Amino acid sequence: MPRPHLSDPGIVTIKLRSGYNVGIALDDIEEMEVLERPEERRGPGRVDTGTGKTPISFLSTGGTIASYVDYTTGAVHPALTAEELAFAVPEVSDECEVRARVFSSVLSEDMEPRMWPRLAECVAEEFKGGSVGVVIPHGTDTMGYTSAALSFMLRRLPGPVVLVGAQRSSDRPSSDAYMNLRHAVKVAKSDLGEVVVVMHATVSDTVSHVHRGTRVRKMHTSRRDAFRSINATPLGEVSDEGVRWFGERKKRDVEVEVVNGINDRAALLHFYPGMPEWLLEDVVNRCDGVVLAGTGLGHISSRLIPVVKRAVRDGTHIFITSQCLYGTTNLNVYSTGRRLLEAGAVPLGDMLPETAYVKLMWAMGSHPERVVEVMRSNIAGEISERRLITW
Amino acid sequence: MPRPHLSDPGIVTIKLRSGYNVGIALDDIEEMEVLERPEERRGPGRVDTGTGKTPISFLSTGGTIASYVDYTTGAVHPALTAEELAFAVPEVSDECEVRARVFSSVLSEDMEPRMWPRLAECVAEEFKGGSVGVVIPHGTDTMGYTSAALSFMLRRLPGPVVLVGAQRSSDRPSSDAYMNLRHAVKVAKSDLGEVVVVMHATVSDTVSHVHRGTRVRKMHTSRRDAFRSINATPLGEVSDEGVRWFGERKKRDVEVEVVNGINDRAALLHFYPGMPEWLLEDVVNRCDGVVLAGTGLGHISSRLIPVVKRAVRDGTHIFITSQCLYGTTNLNVYSTGRRLLEAGAVPLGDMLPETAYVKLMWAMGSHPERVVEVMRSNIAGEISERRLITW
Repeated sequence: MPRPHLSDPGIVTIKLRSGYNVGIALDDIEEMEVLERPEERRGPGRVDTGTGKTPISFLSTGGTIASYVDYTTGAVHPALTAEELAFAVPEVSDECEVRARVFSSVLSEDMEPRMWPRLAECVAEEFKGGSVGVVIPHGTDTMGYTSAALSFMLRRLPGPVVLVGAQRSSDRPSSDAYMNLRHAVKVAKSDLGEVVVVMHATVSDTVSHVHRGTRVRKMHTSRRDAFRSINATPLGEVSDEGVRWFGERKKRDVEVEVVNGINDRAALLHFYPGMPEWLLEDVVNRCDGVVLAGTGLGHISSRLIPVVKRAVRDGTHIFITSQCLYGTTNLNVYSTGRRLLEAGAVPLGDMLPETAYVKLMWAMGSHPERVVEVMRSNIAGEISERRLITW
Repeated sequence: MPRPHLSDPGIVTIKLRSGYNVGIALDDIEEMEVLERPEERRGPGRVDTGTGKTPISFLSTGGTIASYVDYTTGAVHPALTAEELAFAVPEVSDECEVRARVFSSVLSEDMEPRMWPRLAECVAEEFKGGSVGVVIPHGTDTMGYTSAALSFMLRRLPGPVVLVGAQRSSDRPSSDAYMNLRHAVKVAKSDLGEVVVVMHATVSDTVSHVHRGTRVRKMHTSRRDAFRSINATPLGEVSDEGVRWFGERKKRDVEVEVVNGINDRAALLHFYPGMPEWLLEDVVNRCDGVVLAGTGLGHISSRLIPVVKRAVRDGTHIFITSQCLYGTTNLNVYSTGRRLLEAGAVPLGDMLPETAYVKLMWAMGSHPERVVEVMRSNIAGEISERRLITW
């Protein structure tokens, strides 16, 4: 097998008929014999141009989908070059003209908010360069955070932006990378004008779901169908036959518009019984805005409400979501909720805590004069409007 | 309707045929006429003794299930006296000898860890007093935290401890309180020797699920069937016909054993992209143990790993769970995970982050010399043993 340039140069990797790979130390090899030559395959990482096929950009960020297994340690590393990325996705080049570009090479837990504005710019550049869709291979761990960020930053889209990942690396026989990538390309060629995540809908290799970028969450550590739309149905499903849309979606716009200012003096804090006042105080003192994931309808301990009140008085934005994940906040039902409202905390309906945190950074960076208004408005399908009435 | 003693004395509350209540200011009433007298009902709050029926203790903690609506403000307040609690649950007294006792009267977001050891003691006292089961009406917001705490603290149980709640207060016609309480009593009379949560299994008023106290999580802000067993099937289901068990469960033990030491210098922190080093530093510096809810298999940013390493070196316990909630941690797959292991962080398999936090306080308080060993052992069904192999 081709050797990723970071792997141990003393190891040669062999693909077995079972699909599994084995690594053998070069020093241990005494004799080699050529039994058969496979058909010539296209060289890895070649960028097709002028093929007459639909141009689709691949902006790789790293993660399992663009990773290889280091057979010295057995650990998975992110791919580092466009060649390695294209090597991981040979099947898609039959479907489109691949425009491969490496944005970053990190596991997704190392995708930092400061990288999101640059990524949004890169996506815009790809559209301006004539691509009809952009596929972003991304680690699954924080894919929902990045997809939310791009959803807010790419205000008008001339085509689909499709984040796609894999739960098992693409050089494993059980990898979900191939179907996810095939289906991501189908969505990238569609008439959509939104940021979405395309991943397995079930554990079998048949159908993927198209999740709206602001509604999707990784709900399982390892299953192929780990990604779920929360408080929303998926936008559609994809099989090898094509895309079937379930309901309303945004269509391609004429020209891309990027609004990508962020203020990263924000935090996401999950309340728990016993959470001390000093923890919330530390966070509100050092941040311009905080998203709290309260219990149930959006509650926190009565002890903490004076901290919220002081913070809001001193100009820190405090927003309320629910750690239940499903359902909507409502601070009018219980006395604790009403006191939170009186203290100046702002509930965010059925918005995911993670999406709310990303949106807060964007709202504070791009619309600093009207943060609360923007947070309470539906910008990219992240909040159900009828649910805002209960404020 | 009887008037809870905290409600506005100038308001009289009338139950309509529709089931809804209306509040009318006494000053606005010009004339009253008795049209019909309902059958005499048992006085509220009477404690039956010597009835020959099975004695079941009701230890009320507050929450919606033991709450009433304040018709001056429309807000829900927790009930405050044994009379008010018993008034809220008249139906169950046909099924058992009610031994009512008010432990606390708080909305569950105000249940503090320091209250758990006392609650465990109270449960033990009820068993010692001859009760065959203990039902604990509890606010739903933090019911999973309290049920986990009691699961660890009540090491041997001579009967079931059943936490039960309601998503709508018991004086509303749509309340789920009645069925949940009826079914809680059925479980409390069974041969079980565990701490469980009994709540609606679906949105209709037919079947409840019996969830193990360490595996249950509130997954919706408002639905009746908000409670789900995570990474486990429920222990059984209850209908008005009785309890049907699904699989393995602990049976009644001879005598109750309470191990209820806690050390509340613990924290639960959910990682998010951009989480600053100072936040984790603040927390590890002021705590003896921290549970991190990482992304995916249990990851955090590489930036934070040196903070973990220093904390562990300085004697702070760092445990890893996943914010996915479903699935199990595995720090052997990716380089970030391996570096976390090398830094001394300890993964907790498929244990819920909330349960891990509760268990950590208990392990540090009751077994300070072997915290890691206890955290990695299955004490009350909170962790799947086969999943520990991957450490």
